[in-house]
Amino acid sequence: MASFNLLLLPGDGIGPEVMTEVGRVLTWLDKNSGATFETETDLVGGSAYDAHGESISDDAMDKAQKADAVIFGAVGGPKWDSVPYEVRPEAGLLRLRKDLELFANLRPAICYPALADASSLKRDVIEGLDILILRELTGGVYFGEPKEIVTLENGEKRAVDTQLYTTHEIERIARVAFELARARNNKVTSMEKRNVMRSGVLWNQLVSAVHKAEYPDVELEHMLADAGGMQLVRWPKQFDVIVTDNLFGDMLSDVAAMLTGSLGMLPSASLGAPDPETGKRKALYEPVHGSAPDIAGKGIANPIAMIASLGMALRYSCDMGDAADLVDGAIADVLASGARTADLAAKGQNSVSTSDMGDAILAAM
Amino acid sequence: MASFNLLLLPGDGIGPEVMTEVGRVLTWLDKNSGATFETETDLVGGSAYDAHGESISDDAMDKAQKADAVIFGAVGGPKWDSVPYEVRPEAGLLRLRKDLELFANLRPAICYPALADASSLKRDVIEGLDILILRELTGGVYFGEPKEIVTLENGEKRAVDTQLYTTHEIERIARVAFELARARNNKVTSMEKRNVMRSGVLWNQLVSAVHKAEYPDVELEHMLADAGGMQLVRWPKQFDVIVTDNLFGDMLSDVAAMLTGSLGMLPSASLGAPDPETGKRKALYEPVHGSAPDIAGKGIANPIAMIASLGMALRYSCDMGDAADLVDGAIADVLASGARTADLAAKGQNSVSTSDMGDAILAAM
Ligand SMILES: CC(C)[C@H](C(=O)O)[C@@H](O)C(=O)O
Ligand SMILES: CC(C)[C@H](C(=O)O)[C@@H](O)C(=O)O
Repeated sequence: MASFNLLLLPGDGIGPEVMTEVGRVLTWLDKNSGATFETETDLVGGSAYDAHGESISDDAMDKAQKADAVIFGAVGGPKWDSVPYEVRPEAGLLRLRKDLELFANLRPAICYPALADASSLKRDVIEGLDILILRELTGGVYFGEPKEIVTLENGEKRAVDTQLYTTHEIERIARVAFELARARNNKVTSMEKRNVMRSGVLWNQLVSAVHKAEYPDVELEHMLADAGGMQLVRWPKQFDVIVTDNLFGDMLSDVAAMLTGSLGMLPSASLGAPDPETGKRKALYEPVHGSAPDIAGKGIANPIAMIASLGMALRYSCDMGDAADLVDGAIADVLASGARTADLAAKGQNSVSTSDMGDAILAAM
Repeated sequence: MASFNLLLLPGDGIGPEVMTEVGRVLTWLDKNSGATFETETDLVGGSAYDAHGESISDDAMDKAQKADAVIFGAVGGPKWDSVPYEVRPEAGLLRLRKDLELFANLRPAICYPALADASSLKRDVIEGLDILILRELTGGVYFGEPKEIVTLENGEKRAVDTQLYTTHEIERIARVAFELARARNNKVTSMEKRNVMRSGVLWNQLVSAVHKAEYPDVELEHMLADAGGMQLVRWPKQFDVIVTDNLFGDMLSDVAAMLTGSLGMLPSASLGAPDPETGKRKALYEPVHGSAPDIAGKGIANPIAMIASLGMALRYSCDMGDAADLVDGAIADVLASGARTADLAAKGQNSVSTSDMGDAILAAM
């Protein structure tokens, strides 16, 4: 019988509340799916800082290295706005991404039919939308050195961040993009600013080269990242897979998520390279929404993105496609039946609590 | 009698076509406004490269330095996709910005009432929208060094761009933001990624410090740039003035422009610091849309953004607020009367040519 070892990192804000619902789904799966799940829970982000002065402990990092997958909630909040840069909540997440080498971040932007009217975009622009943003996650300006603030002789300060990409980093994310496209609608749009950035020039060249040598059957299009932002707003359905760097991916995937009207619904997967011997990938799954400190502790957060992130873990890390379909189907059914957490409810409509939504999804499963 | 010396740089693609209409408006103003305009025209971008192998000549730069204002069309196009990086079309524009020290880029995002339905966003989300994106234009990753592609010992290439900001660069753009807000709705939203970038940390601190010391009467809000992109799509009317760095400004202002449904209508101004003696600022005015090579030469481009850019020049560089109001009013009248270039026409609606639109605006003036 298959057995999986998951590390749960609820984090800050609404993270713990939505992770509770994941725990309930896991208990159900443990009983009914034919696989067993062992879970451990640890601290990350501001809550880790409060407990032991750093945003993730070496011990938690060890557990993450050994787990079949990390299930991550959210980090950050105004409470930690003035903690030192090195130990700010986000540093815990960035260390996980970097140390586990999770270079491929998959962010589906899907418009759930039941929610098409929740978007600020017109219905016909987003109805049926199903695109995938593939964001490079371990390179670029997030990690390049130097990254510092220095004081100059004249007393001024100078801040530096370094956008840095090397050949293998671009080639490996390009390959993931083309592989994903083959399993979808066979089109990749690569976005950069080659008209301004050297990293954009290299990105553009290498994506084209990988395409020509290995994936000529996939349609490839290049777009400047600013134009890409515009086109996402104008007519997002023109895209299938968008591949872009760490910082552009951060911006563009947030815009895409907001377009769908389903921000509280969107999961993401961050994957490493397959181990040459076992074929297993390191992986972390997290909702696209943040820690939402304004609604934390009220029991009203939408747990769907978090549960859908577990669904992605079942699919990509546990090879349990049927169980993943069961979870996704339960979410769609519950939405179609009209249950709405506060973020989704139309004006005047009743809303259900976080645990009510969890109940409904479990019942549908 | 006031006299102004303008340098016209039509550039590439639809640039020359829309600049022709600016020439006609200038002829009219020369006769009827009480001021005289002397104009010179020169090459920039791909057309400059074709003529003399660089994207702007030293001679044209001299003229730009001496002019009261530069009126700029657009640069770039697939024709020049493989020219060397140093002389690509965009380098001409970047040199103008840098050498004239045009650090403050004002990009209004306005939804013209007559066009509210042209947006992909719902009418109530954008109707009456009037926000201003203030983009820092001479710093950041656009100009920081090192900026290069090197070959490593293992044969891989490494591309580097450097995001760099110093105290005075951030302070001076912050001051412009607060001044602009005082003349509008008194609110500034500053956007950066302080949770990931050192430049974001310094940006955030200095904007707060300038606010506290010099502009405590203005409302100041800080937002992470990715969340800012989301909020622009969700409910753009929450903003008044958004101040942000060069690269985030590039992305966010394009998204904002597309929201309005009025991309072909939006002008921009790039301003330097006032001269300590004369009080005059160097300035460049350009439409937010690009060179649109796909429709170039067909006589169907929308000249409104270009003419509105001349309007901004009248206001900010010529101190001719009345003439600027006249231009803006004529544009609004013509739109209200129903004239539409192809980009604005609804399906099945008749559209007018570039010069027809110019005629209509001149007639309305
Ligand atoms: C929390 C933060 C560091 C993170 C990022 O910038 O990558 C977040 O915005 C995201 O998109 O996952
Ligand atoms: C043409 C290009 C260099 C430019 C930029 O990136 O600044 C353009 O996108 C803009 O926004 O003015």
